[in-house]
Amino acid sequence: MKAGTKSMSEIHVPDLAEITRAFGFTRTATVETPLLEAESLARLSGASRVFIKPESLQRTGSFKFRGAYWRVNQLTPAEKARGVVAYSSGNFAQGLAAAARIANVPCTIVMPVDAPEAKRKGAENLGARIVLSRHGDRPREEVASALAREISQNEGLALLHPFDDASIVAGQAGAGLEALEQFDRLGIAYPDTVFCCVGGGGLVGGVSLAFHYRSPATRVIAVEPDGFDGMGKSLDASTITRAASSNPTICDALQATAPGTAPFAAVTKAGIGHVSVSDAAVRRAMRIAFETLKLVLEPSGAIAIAALLESDGQFEGKTVLCYATGGNITFENFSRLLAA
Amino acid sequence: MKAGTKSMSEIHVPDLAEITRAFGFTRTATVETPLLEAESLARLSGASRVFIKPESLQRTGSFKFRGAYWRVNQLTPAEKARGVVAYSSGNFAQGLAAAARIANVPCTIVMPVDAPEAKRKGAENLGARIVLSRHGDRPREEVASALAREISQNEGLALLHPFDDASIVAGQAGAGLEALEQFDRLGIAYPDTVFCCVGGGGLVGGVSLAFHYRSPATRVIAVEPDGFDGMGKSLDASTITRAASSNPTICDALQATAPGTAPFAAVTKAGIGHVSVSDAAVRRAMRIAFETLKLVLEPSGAIAIAALLESDGQFEGKTVLCYATGGNITFENFSRLLAA
Repeated sequence: MKAGTKSMSEIHVPDLAEITRAFGFTRTATVETPLLEAESLARLSGASRVFIKPESLQRTGSFKFRGAYWRVNQLTPAEKARGVVAYSSGNFAQGLAAAARIANVPCTIVMPVDAPEAKRKGAENLGARIVLSRHGDRPREEVASALAREISQNEGLALLHPFDDASIVAGQAGAGLEALEQFDRLGIAYPDTVFCCVGGGGLVGGVSLAFHYRSPATRVIAVEPDGFDGMGKSLDASTITRAASSNPTICDALQATAPGTAPFAAVTKAGIGHVSVSDAAVRRAMRIAFETLKLVLEPSGAIAIAALLESDGQFEGKTVLCYATGGNITFENFSRLLAA
Repeated sequence: MKAGTKSMSEIHVPDLAEITRAFGFTRTATVETPLLEAESLARLSGASRVFIKPESLQRTGSFKFRGAYWRVNQLTPAEKARGVVAYSSGNFAQGLAAAARIANVPCTIVMPVDAPEAKRKGAENLGARIVLSRHGDRPREEVASALAREISQNEGLALLHPFDDASIVAGQAGAGLEALEQFDRLGIAYPDTVFCCVGGGGLVGGVSLAFHYRSPATRVIAVEPDGFDGMGKSLDASTITRAASSNPTICDALQATAPGTAPFAAVTKAGIGHVSVSDAAVRRAMRIAFETLKLVLEPSGAIAIAALLESDGQFEGKTVLCYATGGNITFENFSRLLAA
């Protein structure tokens, strides 16, 4: 399913039955990440109660495993036998590798030759075959994607996309349904506001559908790094629109400049808000998460908390849920970012 | 109840009914900390499966809230109305302050004048009255304890001890029962081995009772810093014995040189093993917890993981559970320790 080739109305948006089925399956292998109340964040933001869903504690250190595991399950038996291939230098690589290993599906990950050693080792430890792409002077993502496509064709492997896939969206929705179930179990009313980060939009697509179906009064807010607010621009324009990203961001997992077609169809159906925040706000959120929540969050994983902390009292009296989406960062990189 | 004033056989050891009742009550206010599988630790240690119980995610950042909340609940109505006082410069201060606040019991904490600002602020934010003790050249713990006793007498407040109290032991047992329940829920057999840190022994007392009653085949191992192995020495001598601690330890929450009478009676009934580990091993465990578990652990909170990592293949093929007991540390102190 490629952006631009179908009109929005043709794009499949998972319904409640589908996301419920996906969650029922994926939860047999996912960690039920806790719903942590963060009194410190309530005090700092003025919100009445703040809850954190630390997907950093999910298998492979991010929410990516949820969608990957459901997507792999959707393969036909013949596809499963041949295997899958994907391009990723980030959290999707490990999420997919772990999912494929559990499902006993051969998995190939294309990574740029300059991807961090730790990320390669991580995916290798999970049993994936790593193919390095050498981009030279050409755009690294383009070259790696092309190589993944080539491998897919030559070897007959199913080519998986990290976010632009309705099954991935359906799988990520589990992070929403699980939180709703936890609010029920604790006897706490559903949150007024949910902050959720956006790269290509897979997570916010799934989470916003879960709340749309089960708690329509909840307002989901997409959070992006300043300059990488493709989702915000797309929501404002009601059509997929690319952000012009001239500056870099420390949120390496959120560098996509436009949402995928499948996630955008989902958030369009659900109806969401958006906001963007600075790197400085993300650094501050990382430190506060470390010291008050005892959670290691990578920049992208802390951005939802940053958005709440930057909200200037807007959520006073509200119950807020923030997704803390990933924790894949070395101690050295963490220290370097906090020292800056 | 003071050490040495009663023979071991007179010391109350909570039975299964009592710890079950305590857990039933405390769980209405505690976080159900997740049971996280740590494949990285299995790979590094040779164990078959390793699980972590991150009590660092518990309310106030350590397991201390569990025991404190049950203890406060055991007060008579008159005691509740007058309030409680305790000496603590550490995690018990915040655990007790939070427990007292929920139970609407006035709480006074005596802290040495040189306690870290963050710890004072933490307890104050939880509504406790902080009284600073000025020890000058005298031993800081003795002076502060004496002041707490004095306040207790002058103001008629119940004097609470952080670990030498059978109700505290019963409350901490919830960390054991909760893990057992989680193993049940996941359909995973109970662990062969449980590593649990020891300061005064409140947690290991409760946890070892829970496993003794519910999974007697499980071996609980008390973990102490080198030189502060009062529990180990006491177990070897079958009577409370003080460790001669000449060197310092980075595990500031585990500096007690002898177990309390109530915890020692509990572990004697349960039957446990013991081991001590170096500061260097603790530092390594803190880094591994950061990078692979995405958990911020203070030194004392990482020592159980350190013991597993130092076990030299002894637990090959075993299922192991490690308690990660606290995460109250600033980023600066964390960095300083990892740089050393």
